[in-house]
Order: sequence, then C-alpha cells, then structure tokens
Amino acid sequence: MRWNGWGDPAKAKDLPLAVRALLPMLLGRVRKPDPAVELAHVQLAPSRLTDEDHAAFCTAVGPENVDAAAEARIRHAGGRSTPDLLRRREVHQVAPDAVLRPADHAEVRACLDVAVARGIAVIPFGGGTSVVGALDPERGLHHAVVSLDLRRLSGLIRLDEISGDAVLAAGTTGPEAEALLSARGYELGHFPQSFRYATIGGFAAARSSGQNSAGNGRFDTMVTGIRVATPTGDIELGRSPGSAAGPDLIRIFLGSEGIFGVITEVRVRVHPIPRDRLFESWSFPDFASGAEGLRGVAQQGGGPTVIRLSDEAETAVSLAQVGRIGKALAKGASVVTVYEGEDIAERRARTGARLAAAGGVSAGEGPAEEWRKGRFDGPYLRDSLLDAGVFCETLETATTWSNLKALRSAVESALKAGFADVGAKSYVMCHVSHIYPSGASLYFTVLAALRGEPLRVWDAVKARVNDAIISSGGTISHHHAVGRDHAPWLRQEIGETGIRILSAIKRELDPAGVLNPGAVLPLERMH
Amino acid sequence: MRWNGWGDPAKAKDLPLAVRALLPMLLGRVRKPDPAVELAHVQLAPSRLTDEDHAAFCTAVGPENVDAAAEARIRHAGGRSTPDLLRRREVHQVAPDAVLRPADHAEVRACLDVAVARGIAVIPFGGGTSVVGALDPERGLHHAVVSLDLRRLSGLIRLDEISGDAVLAAGTTGPEAEALLSARGYELGHFPQSFRYATIGGFAAARSSGQNSAGNGRFDTMVTGIRVATPTGDIELGRSPGSAAGPDLIRIFLGSEGIFGVITEVRVRVHPIPRDRLFESWSFPDFASGAEGLRGVAQQGGGPTVIRLSDEAETAVSLAQVGRIGKALAKGASVVTVYEGEDIAERRARTGARLAAAGGVSAGEGPAEEWRKGRFDGPYLRDSLLDAGVFCETLETATTWSNLKALRSAVESALKAGFADVGAKSYVMCHVSHIYPSGASLYFTVLAALRGEPLRVWDAVKARVNDAIISSGGTISHHHAVGRDHAPWLRQEIGETGIRILSAIKRELDPAGVLNPGAVLPLERMH
Repeated sequence: MRWNGWGDPAKAKDLPLAVRALLPMLLGRVRKPDPAVELAHVQLAPSRLTDEDHAAFCTAVGPENVDAAAEARIRHAGGRSTPDLLRRREVHQVAPDAVLRPADHAEVRACLDVAVARGIAVIPFGGGTSVVGALDPERGLHHAVVSLDLRRLSGLIRLDEISGDAVLAAGTTGPEAEALLSARGYELGHFPQSFRYATIGGFAAARSSGQNSAGNGRFDTMVTGIRVATPTGDIELGRSPGSAAGPDLIRIFLGSEGIFGVITEVRVRVHPIPRDRLFESWSFPDFASGAEGLRGVAQQGGGPTVIRLSDEAETAVSLAQVGRIGKALAKGASVVTVYEGEDIAERRARTGARLAAAGGVSAGEGPAEEWRKGRFDGPYLRDSLLDAGVFCETLETATTWSNLKALRSAVESALKAGFADVGAKSYVMCHVSHIYPSGASLYFTVLAALRGEPLRVWDAVKARVNDAIISSGGTISHHHAVGRDHAPWLRQEIGETGIRILSAIKRELDPAGVLNPGAVLPLERMH
Repeated sequence: MRWNGWGDPAKAKDLPLAVRALLPMLLGRVRKPDPAVELAHVQLAPSRLTDEDHAAFCTAVGPENVDAAAEARIRHAGGRSTPDLLRRREVHQVAPDAVLRPADHAEVRACLDVAVARGIAVIPFGGGTSVVGALDPERGLHHAVVSLDLRRLSGLIRLDEISGDAVLAAGTTGPEAEALLSARGYELGHFPQSFRYATIGGFAAARSSGQNSAGNGRFDTMVTGIRVATPTGDIELGRSPGSAAGPDLIRIFLGSEGIFGVITEVRVRVHPIPRDRLFESWSFPDFASGAEGLRGVAQQGGGPTVIRLSDEAETAVSLAQVGRIGKALAKGASVVTVYEGEDIAERRARTGARLAAAGGVSAGEGPAEEWRKGRFDGPYLRDSLLDAGVFCETLETATTWSNLKALRSAVESALKAGFADVGAKSYVMCHVSHIYPSGASLYFTVLAALRGEPLRVWDAVKARVNDAIISSGGTISHHHAVGRDHAPWLRQEIGETGIRILSAIKRELDPAGVLNPGAVLPLERMH
C-alpha cells in the first residue's frame, strides 16, 4: 500500500482530462497545493519505548517483529481518510512508538500482557484502511503506544464444507481469504471498497458492509464465531448457529474496533462459488423514483446480489469518468444491479418488474459491467484530486425508507453550507449501496477546492454533518464505524445508558485502558 | 390460561384412545398419579411485603394494580415447563409476594425505583410461558420478590408502512399483535408454540424462534429497535437499519431475560399479509436423509416459510395422534413444508428438487395442513399425559450440519440412560424445526412413566442431557433461553470471559441486583 495514499503505487493515475476540465465548472478556481513531503523527509518524535519496553516486546514476538524504524512507524500512523492523507503530506507527523508483528493468538496475548504490565497503549492494525481515525496513534494516559500489526495472523484455519463454515485468521486480507476459499470451491463474498487491503478481523471489528450486501448480507450477518484476546482473558464464541443461550456476545465484539480485545480468528459463513453472473443497469428520472424502486426490491426479497442507486449529481459526473459508468446514464439517476448464485434469471425478472414499476428503464449490461471493473478503484481518484488541489471525502449514514429523503437533504445542506462558510463551492454526490427491508444507506462524496487549513475546514464541516445526521434521525455510521472521528456523537446515538454499557464492558475487559484509547468511547469516558 | 396447565381450560382434552393404547407398549406400566391440588387448597407463605413496600408500589401503579391475593400470586409462581406443572400440583407452593401491573413505561420505571429503594426483587412477567425457570419467584438476597406483569403494556404504538416497521408495546401477545397489524394489512409472522399467550417483550427477552423461521427469521432478526427501563436509566436503541455505530447494543437485551432491564417497547420488521399459501409434506427413508434434504434447502436459500423434519420415532407416534400428521407419514421420517408470500410456486419447485434429490417423496398437502391446524396444541397433550401418569417434557439445542447426527445421538442416549437409571423406560422423539445455512435446531420430546419423585428424577436426567449437549458441541438452548434451568451450563458455553461481560453489564445497569435474580447468571455470580 502506498505510504501516503491509496493502494498500489503502480496503479496511481493522473486525473482524467475530462475530470480536470469539469472541476473549475463545479468548484470554481482550483489551485495546486504545496507538494507532499517525501517519506525520507518526514520527521517523527523519537520512540517513547524504553529499552525495557522494547526488550519485553522482543520476548513476546521475537526481536525481528518489533520494528521501531521510522518507515514502519509512519506506515502505521493512521488510516486512509482524507484527513489522514493530508496529515501524511506534512513534514512533522505523529506515529506509534513501534510496530509489533505477532504471528498468532498466543503472541497477541503475550503483547497484551506486556502492554498491560508496562502501561503501553496498543492500536490493533489490520489493513490500515480505517477512514474514521480508528488507527490514530493515541497513547491516552500511557507513556507510549504501539501498533499491533495483525497481518501475520493469516490463513484458512478450518473449512467445514458440510456446514458452509470457515475459520479465518484475523489478519487475512480480502483477496487472500477469497483465494484460499476459492481453491476449495467456496466464496465468502464480502467486497467493501477496501477489499484489496482490509482484513477479516477489520471487517468484524468495524461492522463492514460489502458491495454484495444485498445478496450476501453485511459482514455482521456472515460471522458465526469469533476468537478474541482481551487484556484480561481470552474468549471464543459461536458454538452453534441459532442460539438463545443469553445475549449474543459475538455482537459485543463486532463493532468494538479493538477497544475490548484483539480479534484473532473469525468464523464465517461461506457458499459455493457462484457459477453465473448477470448485469443490468437502469435509469430513473430522479433519485426519488430510484429509491422507491430499491425499496420495492428490498421489501420483496430474493433480488440482486448488488444494487446501487446514484443520485443525479453522481450520475452526471460519471459522464466525465472515462472507463466508468458511461454516457448512457448521464441524466437522471442510475442504478447498477448484479446477480450471482442461483436462479439469477428469475431474480432479475422479479427485480426488473419492481424497478420498472417505479419508473426505471433498463439500460443494458454495459454500465453495470463497467461499474464492476472499477469498483475498487475509487480511492485512487481521490489521491489524484488531492494532488490537483481538490479536497475529496466520503461519509455515510443510513435510515428508514420513510426518512431517506429528509436525511439526504439534511446532509447535503450541511456539507454545502459548511464549505460555503469558508467561501468554497462544493459538489455533493450521493448513492444508496446497501438496502434493507426497513431502510437503506446513504453514501456521500463531496468535492471542494482546498482552502485555508483543509483539516480545520473539514473538522467544522464534518461536525456540522454529524449534527445534521443525528438531528435528522440517521445513524452516525452505516459501515465506516465510529473510530475517533465519530466518537463524540455516539452518546447521542445510543444514549447515556448505552455509553455506560460500553464503558462497563471496557472496564471489565481492559481495566488498564491500553486498547485503542479514545476510539468509540471518547477518552474521558474510559475510566 | 389454565392456572396449573396449558392454555384455555375449555380446550383441554382427554388423552386420545389411540395414545392411551400405545403408552404401555412404549413405556411399560403407567400408573395414575395422585390428583392435583385444587387452586383453593394451595398453601402459600404470607406475602413478605411490608406495609410500606405495599404502599410504595401502590403509589407507583395505583392500589388496584398491586395484587397480593393468593390466586394472583399462584398464577405468577412460574412458567410452563413440566417441572412447573408438577410444582403446581402440590399443596405447598412458592409464589411472588405480590403482582404489580404497570400501565406503561413510566409506571415500569416507577416500580423499579421502588424495588431498588426498598430492596425488593422483580421478576418481569409477560405471557408466563417460560419453560426454563425464568419466572421462578427467586428473591435472591432481597427481603421480598414481586412479579411485574407487563400485560397492560399492550398495543401498536406506531406503524411505518413505508419502512415496514412497527413499534409494539412489550406486553402485547402474539395474537393481539397480529390482529392489530392485520387491520392495517401487515403481519409480523412470528409463531412459536407459545404464540397464543407469549408477548412481544418475552419473544425479545428470550430470543424466541417461531415456526415460520425458515421464511421470516428468528425473532432476533425481526427486531429493529427496543426501549428498556433499567434500574439505573432508560435506553432506546435502533435509530437505523444497518448501523456500524459501535456494537449492536440491541443484542445485549435480546436474550437478557429481564436481568438487565424491563423491555417496554419493541420495534419489529413487518410485511404485507401473505396472499397465498402452499402446503407440501414429504416422506424420507430416515432422519439422516431428511436432514440432508433440509441442509440443501437451507444452503440454497429462497425456500419455504416453514420446514420441519420429524425423526422416525416422532413420525411413528404421529400415527396414533388423531387429527395430527396422519397415517401416510407413519414410516420413515416426515417433513412438513409451508410456503407463504411471493413466488411460492417457484419456491416450492426449487425446494422440492432439493428434497427429492436427498431421497424425499412428496406426500401431498394433507399432512402439512393437519400439522398447521394443530400447531399450537401440543402443550394440551402434555397436560393429559401428566394426568395419566406420563412425564412428558421437551428440550432443544442446535449445532452445525456436520455435527447434527452426533449431537442428536448424544442427547437421545443421555435421555434414555437418565430414565433407565431410575428403572423407567422412555420414548424419545426428535425434530428439526429451524434451519440455517450452517446448521439446524434439534427439538426433543421425551415420554416416561412417572417414577419416584418426578422433579428429582428429571433434574438428574436434565443435568445429564445438558452435559451431553455441551460436550457434544451443541448450544445449551436454541430458543427456550437460559432461565435458571440452564444457567449453570452457560459458563461452559460462553466461557469465563463471557460470564464476566454479562456480570459487568449487570453490575452497571442493576447494581442492586433486583432484576430476576439467578436467571441467566447463577446467583453467586451477580456480585
């Protein structure tokens, strides 16, 4: 992964000419920013680990797996939000004091024991793709902080082909998991945009939702078991599908973002690799009619594997994205559907009937196939935009179908007003990519010319958006999770009693507060 | 509800002649037990509530809703397990010291405040259908215990027809909920055997699973929001479908069986009343081939709304049950399927192909229709058996498909060996009534002639079965929940760390320990 941007450096591209031409029309004057710092010129404070700390971690994982070199520290300094990337452009950066690379559950356990004994904060680190500040090297009240890189916990531990159930090590990436399962004829089928880098443990810790969620469900619903090392003891959950043996404690760890323990293994539902696939794109007069179509599909059930609705603004811009959705969908609101698995012709017919009834017109296979080809490449574009002087960020929420329009409008207004406050024109796009019988997600992309201090500008805009989400009945996150960026709003989402429940679990499992301080629960709430 | 048995006293029936003839063959000599005590002759210890306690509760809910009369106390003395019914046959009974009937969330809150202030245990009580001892009038370390009857919290509070989302008061019974929704064209579609009496709050608190779970899901999956009064504060959860805003705290309360708080409202997913319904019964050579058929159906998806597989023993006995499944299925293992909702012909065809491939032969509509007519009446038969001197009890578990055969055999052996230890022949039947992609439930019914002290005999048998379930990889409950009867085995299911998590939440929300002492968490673990 590129140290200060997204993905494979070889795949980074210049901004397509069409986009470059469009930007001034959308955003007004755009100025190139100062060049980003080079890796060799980044300045870090010296590691705060004492010699004794270092030696103790060496005993836990072997000296070759305790890395306090600047490059390793910088590469674990945060996630991949736009603020993260802006921070990676600066000379002075904040990074963890070392990177630990345990090999297995026992070594994770040993790292936690050292951290507790020596008062060192631990940031569990999978693919490094968090966009909500969950990987900030926050040491809380401790004297140092280490990044616990879980990538060596990789592999398919067990596959029960009869039950369609696989145990994967938490540091296995999306592509690694699919390759291992595919060799046995199976698929997990979880494809978030971070798929190429993110890990199975990260999917669980952040309650990820993939592009195939309409057919395969959120990652939450795929998890059948979990193994976690907490600072005060291990836990293994998920003896059986369909249990009523007390509250489902797996759900305590799904969405826990490393504050209760380190997920080391995840058991997931897998299915035979789908033999067939069908694509169909649709065009709607507007977002409202498209959303009505998606509601019909969600409430009917037995529909597509993937369904996505782009609003007018997103549909219009796709025109400029060569190799993306294409001209046919430039007006109105476009929908992409993909069908995989069994009975796909029937499912397409049933879905098509609903979409047509809501005013949709089929636009053939092409645009949906194009979408699939580029589906993991969005973040590359953001890097090019930043280099060109354009701030580009995404955020997301969800709500009931009856509240979808009001919430979309509130978030869009908050984004535009926030940038307008600093004199910047912005362009806001929205899509629905995850549907449920009772509601749907809303995913926003905003573009604006870089102005003033971009991190401060965004902090203010983002706060305004979060306030709008809460006051308009949305959830503070549909699949990006809480991290540190959303933590101040969590109390409004789950109430004081909800925060007290999380804090009580935190105190019980991690009384020293070494795990991911300030994520999910703001720092002052941890003790 | 009959005070010492199941359901409507008018519907209670004598044992069918065919069953009466069969019993000596199956169980050896059966002797009529002593007649059960009459309600008027039951003896209770005087209520332990002081005059001040009584007055405080009268202030909370009004004097007419604080009932310390013997009949009310006896009617709230427990649930409806066979041990409960045996206890109801005795002269000396243990009952709560009073029954409170709050009208709404605020009155529930007021009752909890009084209970905490005065040190009185509270047993939340919905339909009174627990079969795991969750309603035992246990006062723990407190001087008295009251039953908090929630039946007055009844009604449809909101229906969002666009989102297919309804808020129901927790004390609404199954039939009441369906009647209220049906008037608006909607259905919840949750039909456990306790449907006629159990409440929406009880379904949530116990993680209920209904007969239509193959199509409509477990009750867990229907819940989209919840409102709970805890001793230390209220909580309302479920702002949005599809959230990643930290762990899903709704899941803390699903399966909490009243130990963390009193559920006062539940938001549930509802769907339009299905227009069509199809029945089809199947016959398999044996349980193993039938299970293989069900696995195919579960892993394929898009199948029936109801699917049930009876093993050879259950299938054989159905022969004798007039008005039940009928002669056609007397041999081998019988399967009942019901299809409701959309595309039912397609779903039947797809399911039929899988069942036929596993060796199933269609047996027409009749037996499945018969099953549906009698589907809530099983518990009446148990009362008649008890009167005839036959102990009859059910228990259930679940596991992965690959472990189904081993678990079934372990439980069956434990049941038979347990009764054999006291010289009783037993007859054990099993069915699968809930299927998942990765596994299924196993539901056992055991019959044995009443011998010695039936409660003691059953305690020993049940302990043996629970040990077998745990050592054979099953869950201690698939849908009956934990209550007090399964609590000693929960630690083996979720581990010491799991028990610590539940205890931490308990201490945070109910530091005085007034709520349902000894349920889920054995008494010594609560502080």
